[in-house]
Amino acid sequence: MPKPVQVSLVGGDHGPWNVESLVAVAGPGLKDVARVDMVEGPWPFGLGGIWLLRGVTSNDRYVERRERDALTASQAPLGRPEATAAALIAITKSQEWWDLAQDERRAILEDRSHHIAVGLEYLPAIARRLAHGRDRQEEFDFLTWFEFAPSNAGAFDELLARLRATEEWSYVEREVEIRLAR
Amino acid sequence: MPKPVQVSLVGGDHGPWNVESLVAVAGPGLKDVARVDMVEGPWPFGLGGIWLLRGVTSNDRYVERRERDALTASQAPLGRPEATAAALIAITKSQEWWDLAQDERRAILEDRSHHIAVGLEYLPAIARRLAHGRDRQEEFDFLTWFEFAPSNAGAFDELLARLRATEEWSYVEREVEIRLAR
Repeated sequence: MPKPVQVSLVGGDHGPWNVESLVAVAGPGLKDVARVDMVEGPWPFGLGGIWLLRGVTSNDRYVERRERDALTASQAPLGRPEATAAALIAITKSQEWWDLAQDERRAILEDRSHHIAVGLEYLPAIARRLAHGRDRQEEFDFLTWFEFAPSNAGAFDELLARLRATEEWSYVEREVEIRLAR
Repeated sequence: MPKPVQVSLVGGDHGPWNVESLVAVAGPGLKDVARVDMVEGPWPFGLGGIWLLRGVTSNDRYVERRERDALTASQAPLGRPEATAAALIAITKSQEWWDLAQDERRAILEDRSHHIAVGLEYLPAIARRLAHGRDRQEEFDFLTWFEFAPSNAGAFDELLARLRATEEWSYVEREVEIRLAR
């Protein structure tokens, strides 16, 4: 697990990713843009855009050792040549979620919603990276970036639908889904 | 549990807290200063200092419901008139700590080191506030600010000694202790 890395995502008119759709699933959306760029580290000064979303990769909050081992054994990195489809799911959870104690959040996230186990079923086809925004007081609590081959778009849709049907998702008060291709 | 609040601590020549001692317990210390000021929110532009430490209050990472209820029932707020003694314990944990899975960190922190249970024994005499710096890529992973009546300084020393003797503390790679009075 590397040190925290800042992830900056800019919507505008540059970057390798063409926006195919941008949907406000819950709460306020984001302005429509043509392209999205993603960089590690602070956003380069002087490079413009319509919106800027930031987060930081961080330590696991819920994943236990046996789950980590299973994830590590199966997961794929970003940047695979065949993974020309991507999605950004930006989420903010409710104050009620954050008011829960650690064991209560774990019970909802995994024991009852199977978030980790469900995600594992889609590895290695769906690669992903989670960035946290809440402790940085950013616009979204979580930015999850997914990459997959276009032939796995249906599997990704299924993954999203399964997660959105969970008890955990009842604590999502804002969600924006952006689908992209390069 | 309120929304995250940024906490800024400045060492310099102003603020209500006189520095009585500043000790590098592990790793690099901080420059000696005469006074410390603490503000919520960003540090006011133009107000100088020798060093600036920042963090953010956040959700519980390890505390379970029964522990939260016990803490809530016993804890005291900052700013009590009689609490004219304070301490700042600034800590960074090792990469090895952050590489552990959630259940492994919980097992060390509470099951084997009793961090939460030990802290509870010193409530309400020792009031405290924890700010997180790691996800903000700040100088320290944790800034914990303690306030107590001078008559409880011995109890605070005991609390510190007990925590430092734990397995959890073997993962502390940098620690600075600042004792203060107003």
